Amino acid sequence: MKTRAAVAFEAGKPLEIVELDLEGPKAGEVLVEIKATGICHTDEFTLSGADPEGLFPSVLGHEGAGIVVDVGAGVTSVKKGDHVIPLYTPECRECPSCLSRKTNLCTAIRATQGQGLMPDGTTRFSYKGKPVYHYMGCSTFSNYTVMPEIAVAKIDPKAPFETVCYVGCGVTTGVGAVLNTAKVEQGATAVVFGLGGIGLNVIQGLKMAGADMIIGVDLNDDKKEWGERFGMTHFVNPKQIDGDIVAHLINMTKRGADQIGGADYTFDCTGNVTVMRQALEASHRGWGKSVIIGVAGAGQEISTRPFQLVTGRTWMGTAFGGARGRTDVPKIVAWYMDGKIQIDPMITHTLRLEDINKGFDLMHKGESIRSVVLF
Amino acid sequence: MKTRAAVAFEAGKPLEIVELDLEGPKAGEVLVEIKATGICHTDEFTLSGADPEGLFPSVLGHEGAGIVVDVGAGVTSVKKGDHVIPLYTPECRECPSCLSRKTNLCTAIRATQGQGLMPDGTTRFSYKGKPVYHYMGCSTFSNYTVMPEIAVAKIDPKAPFETVCYVGCGVTTGVGAVLNTAKVEQGATAVVFGLGGIGLNVIQGLKMAGADMIIGVDLNDDKKEWGERFGMTHFVNPKQIDGDIVAHLINMTKRGADQIGGADYTFDCTGNVTVMRQALEASHRGWGKSVIIGVAGAGQEISTRPFQLVTGRTWMGTAFGGARGRTDVPKIVAWYMDGKIQIDPMITHTLRLEDINKGFDLMHKGESIRSVVLF
Repeated sequence: MKTRAAVAFEAGKPLEIVELDLEGPKAGEVLVEIKATGICHTDEFTLSGADPEGLFPSVLGHEGAGIVVDVGAGVTSVKKGDHVIPLYTPECRECPSCLSRKTNLCTAIRATQGQGLMPDGTTRFSYKGKPVYHYMGCSTFSNYTVMPEIAVAKIDPKAPFETVCYVGCGVTTGVGAVLNTAKVEQGATAVVFGLGGIGLNVIQGLKMAGADMIIGVDLNDDKKEWGERFGMTHFVNPKQIDGDIVAHLINMTKRGADQIGGADYTFDCTGNVTVMRQALEASHRGWGKSVIIGVAGAGQEISTRPFQLVTGRTWMGTAFGGARGRTDVPKIVAWYMDGKIQIDPMITHTLRLEDINKGFDLMHKGESIRSVVLF
Repeated sequence: MKTRAAVAFEAGKPLEIVELDLEGPKAGEVLVEIKATGICHTDEFTLSGADPEGLFPSVLGHEGAGIVVDVGAGVTSVKKGDHVIPLYTPECRECPSCLSRKTNLCTAIRATQGQGLMPDGTTRFSYKGKPVYHYMGCSTFSNYTVMPEIAVAKIDPKAPFETVCYVGCGVTTGVGAVLNTAKVEQGATAVVFGLGGIGLNVIQGLKMAGADMIIGVDLNDDKKEWGERFGMTHFVNPKQIDGDIVAHLINMTKRGADQIGGADYTFDCTGNVTVMRQALEASHRGWGKSVIIGVAGAGQEISTRPFQLVTGRTWMGTAFGGARGRTDVPKIVAWYMDGKIQIDPMITHTLRLEDINKGFDLMHKGESIRSVVLF
């Protein structure tokens, strides 16, 4: 069949809208009609050429929602007509990782996915007879795409595609980092570094978890209003304070009898390794947990004095918010449908596929929280 | 009163055995007759002058056992005749840290303890009329010493001083890192870097916890036999392998269906920041926990790529094995009395106070696991 898609032919160049050939689903695979897809910083990271594992030509996009239109042999967990969200972190429920009960990082198709291929080692996309790579196992910048059955989460068919597509990455990453990775409890104090889409979703996760003090940190004062909309209780612009941001945050978090200070939980949503260190060091002696969510540039390293850990801080990270895709993504969609979390205000722009490059421009300019492309 | 003590008059010089003046216990304090004390690397670190917070003149030593011989006003939890182990990490059961249920790092007397003083801001020791500093709130290199009530753990009076003094630091640190900090479960795989006293105690903690695979790593082949004595199942000398130690350990820990490899838990017992990084990176993708126990040199830093954490590894540390002193130390002594853990073989040398500097020499030469001074 044919599908309209935005193709990344070359690093650093705009996407091109073309008609691709798409092979139907093989055994264990499903064909999905993508109805909406978000544009995420990770797509931008790869398109820019900064991602050392980026492959071209490829169909980017990993934050979509759509409808199953065909299934390959042996597919039993979804059927034609089901509404689904593609999962860049699949959930096979059979590999040692899925069975460990300790991680969401399913390894069933890790090797081929990293090579831009389907599990059988081939691509379903081609252009003028030449293969076009898949991306993160999703390739949602295409009106139709093929995915392994284990990489789609079946969701409430009443959920609107143009907002729940965001659950495919940003919402789950932020909310999940709080609930699955940090396991924040009622009454906690927390600091969120970076109030982009991920940071705002961390904030609403913290509100859900019952945190008392939710401090947002951003260099842009405009983010104060954004943070407060989702539950932030305090805002700090590091440019507006005297002295060191870590000392400032430690002072802010001294409460009641506790005159040591430091937040119970801190989250880096910037990808900046200096900020990652600040986040660790602003967490509480004895029990502070600091979670890295942002993706650092290739080859960059984090560092600190080991004393920070020996005195009880824990440094950890999260991918896809620690969520098991087929199990947890439908729950997050349900939370949205029940009003427990918000998504609509974060979708600041909706575009047609033809205008997808404008979505990247808005991101570069810092003018969008999330741009969504509608098919 | 008078007490015989080994005094550190100057950094980098041998200890001197002198008679000190010792004031009796004030309110909330106890006078302890030290019967035995271990010599630990931390004493050596301070004596050498490498510890930027080291104070002189002082009475070092923090790994002792003895008998309460007098108590100050208001002391209720111990009485004359009780056998006790001094605690460099006290347990007041009233401060925000003790009440957090998340850390053992009691802060009740942290400030004065770090300044070599009793909680009232003075010293009990003096020499020729001049104050001599306390050390880690213990100063067990003295036949008599004064401590706050919250800094002594009451133990089984049948326990022999010359072995259970080691519970005051090394045993609790190693066994506690496994049980309290890492919370190792049955069937786990683990790597222990550095098979000195702490490493051997980590090994016996892992055996208690039911770990399946306990890999010891040391540059000294003589440590193989030592490790095996306490439950080590595999030994690696990094000098004897081809290539990278991390890759080697990841290969060793591929088991059954799990072809990713990496240990469920790794422990640094070296204090070497390069080894700390290796320990983190040799832990399992998705769920590996790496615990820093060793104390790094002043100003040294650890580093890694944040990707190591984002893909599910956790970097943490432990002080005093995460043990709450008054609660957990008596339990560890009971485990020793019941034969659940061993201590006797680790006490390789016993010395008289006059010979305490020989104990430091044995440590320098790597000839002792633990030297104990008997009074």
